[in-house]
Amino acid sequence: MSKRSNRVLAIGQSGGPTPVINASLAGALSEYRRQDAFTRIFGLVHGIEGAIRENFLDLSRESPATIERLRYTPASILGSCRYKLEATDYERILAVFRAHEIHDFIYIGGNDSMDTCHRIADLARLSGYELRVVGVPKTIDNDLVSTDHTPGFGSAARFVALATRDAGRDLESMATFDDVIIMETMGRNAGWLTAASVLGKSCNEEAPHLVFVPEKTFDENCFLENVLRVHAELGRVFVVVCEGVRDSEGHPVGHSIMDTNRQDAFGHRLVALSGGVASYLSALVVKELGLQSRFLRPGLIGRVFSACASDTDRQEAYLAGEAAVGRLLRDEADCMICLVRPEGEAYRCEIGSVPLLEVANREKLLPLEYINEKGNMILDGYKDYAQPLIGGALPILARLSAKGVGQRLG
Amino acid sequence: MSKRSNRVLAIGQSGGPTPVINASLAGALSEYRRQDAFTRIFGLVHGIEGAIRENFLDLSRESPATIERLRYTPASILGSCRYKLEATDYERILAVFRAHEIHDFIYIGGNDSMDTCHRIADLARLSGYELRVVGVPKTIDNDLVSTDHTPGFGSAARFVALATRDAGRDLESMATFDDVIIMETMGRNAGWLTAASVLGKSCNEEAPHLVFVPEKTFDENCFLENVLRVHAELGRVFVVVCEGVRDSEGHPVGHSIMDTNRQDAFGHRLVALSGGVASYLSALVVKELGLQSRFLRPGLIGRVFSACASDTDRQEAYLAGEAAVGRLLRDEADCMICLVRPEGEAYRCEIGSVPLLEVANREKLLPLEYINEKGNMILDGYKDYAQPLIGGALPILARLSAKGVGQRLG
Repeated sequence: MSKRSNRVLAIGQSGGPTPVINASLAGALSEYRRQDAFTRIFGLVHGIEGAIRENFLDLSRESPATIERLRYTPASILGSCRYKLEATDYERILAVFRAHEIHDFIYIGGNDSMDTCHRIADLARLSGYELRVVGVPKTIDNDLVSTDHTPGFGSAARFVALATRDAGRDLESMATFDDVIIMETMGRNAGWLTAASVLGKSCNEEAPHLVFVPEKTFDENCFLENVLRVHAELGRVFVVVCEGVRDSEGHPVGHSIMDTNRQDAFGHRLVALSGGVASYLSALVVKELGLQSRFLRPGLIGRVFSACASDTDRQEAYLAGEAAVGRLLRDEADCMICLVRPEGEAYRCEIGSVPLLEVANREKLLPLEYINEKGNMILDGYKDYAQPLIGGALPILARLSAKGVGQRLG
Repeated sequence: MSKRSNRVLAIGQSGGPTPVINASLAGALSEYRRQDAFTRIFGLVHGIEGAIRENFLDLSRESPATIERLRYTPASILGSCRYKLEATDYERILAVFRAHEIHDFIYIGGNDSMDTCHRIADLARLSGYELRVVGVPKTIDNDLVSTDHTPGFGSAARFVALATRDAGRDLESMATFDDVIIMETMGRNAGWLTAASVLGKSCNEEAPHLVFVPEKTFDENCFLENVLRVHAELGRVFVVVCEGVRDSEGHPVGHSIMDTNRQDAFGHRLVALSGGVASYLSALVVKELGLQSRFLRPGLIGRVFSACASDTDRQEAYLAGEAAVGRLLRDEADCMICLVRPEGEAYRCEIGSVPLLEVANREKLLPLEYINEKGNMILDGYKDYAQPLIGGALPILARLSAKGVGQRLG
């Protein structure tokens, strides 16, 4: 590759922010500083929208102190986007890249973003414009193919595991007047994140008691039967359900009632806004079973909360960003960085890469071998997979050994 | 005090569990082990209900390892309750205490529980039954009088500070398609916890932009004007609002609409269940201002989440439980343990005690001097008060120093 007087690297962030997406940026900035191949590094403001609008920040002089802080700073500091590109946008992006002599591009995002990367790389090739593109995976949903897991997943999974464990203890404390808690998790069509609710569970009595992922069809009657059964056994039920569960006709659960309400006047709007499957199921439990029920929906707090992020996840996100710069320098472009887990007892993670085309627009669902036959619990194989990603086993909580004291009055 | 062959200490937990209420139990158990004055220690199962139902656990032989784990175990391991005692219950409680030779009682809870303690102590005195009662404060609401702060508050406040900070960064990342986030906090009639949302804010641009506490009357028009003003200035608005805010007639905000829906059929029940002021205000913003709005309601996750608990809070909760046993042994009973903050630059906390009567059924609200005149922001005096309680200043997040790159295409 010819040495250029002005070799500008552009980097952007896309999709739902995570606690560690800035760690990937930090890794890239750090590697940029170590190299002298690039003259400048530009950040796209609000992802690919920044490229279209010619809106860049010059990141060339960020200090090591800022870069270090970025590792621990949640959300997307460059600004994110969910913009769906139109055909004409690609031409514009290339024109902007050309005008700024950007020949290297790193995009941190999920499968939509990998599709964007792939299309830009393709168009550049067709247009004879020299452009190297590397994608850095980022999604809490963990639904990207060709990578063992995705940066962002471990931290969000850790939140789900801890929230389930702690809220489950709360339900246990209060069992005399609360019956059913239904917690909703993100994850879109994949149950990876929802499944993480079992990572703090060490026995049958502990939360979660029922887990529902989109990989299995959701049946309301079956759900109610399950709730009744667990309630009869334990006196309480902690349910974790993915936002993406669907009924046998493929409709999102609670969809019809939400739509009805959405078309309705003011009061109903609240329902549409609160919405979601947990609120619907919670109402169903109250109505059909006469049990008390509450729902929890941590929402974006669970997606972006950095206070209990996984150190493993943060480190891997950093390494992925660092590796992206390395790939560009070695001319190994038009790829996505991936995380490879070598066989072996102890967890290790190596950095690899895969062609963008292999990843773009594909979804990796939770394997059925991780879900029990009834479709209401996650199996131990998943724990082996996911526990290292959240930073190892959660600390063991206390259980009393105390026995009951004999009654003297009765 | 006469040496008794069988001196039994009873201990119970009450009200909404916190991340550190078990730390107080750990402190008491630890001190019990160090002393040989008591022959046994009984835990009340589900608080005072356990005393009524004669339902005790013998905690006398819990291991040091279990006690150590209790410090880090969220929620109420003995079981909690929200039972409002009837007049006849007190007689029953004394009868049960008498039958089990319980002459010492520690109750960990909020102002209702201190009232319970006070009444039991009173009745024992009237009945000539020897009973020492010590209350240990516990509430995330921080609304107990005669103590600088309450164990449980620091941890819940830390969660609010971190959740606001991180979700605020998320809103900032996504500013091109989200406008307003409204987060609801607990706290009942007191704004202490809601105010903690400012503890991670270091400049005007950062979340929260508007904070509403129950100590000031809430006016919907004024709220909407505030939202519009901040939106015009920053392009986004992060609002934190306490569950307990009331309008000029003293009604909880959003109360009427929730009630209407509660009487209604199935779909509306969701509203009642999701309920709350944030969901109501979020709908109001959509309807009246045409802005996009979402609401967050971490609910009991924020109350009990132990993964980001305050170390200071945890340690003070432990010391308070430990001190309660000490007070019983020194015959300084019918009091509540309190936390005293000596004057001085550096934060210190000493353990004291106050008469139960002074605390029972009273509420300590957020002083008006901590709230700005407009009633939409918290002042710096509060930061000085609360920051040590959450374990000190939160880590500083990254801010880029980068400047925009000049346009070449336009």
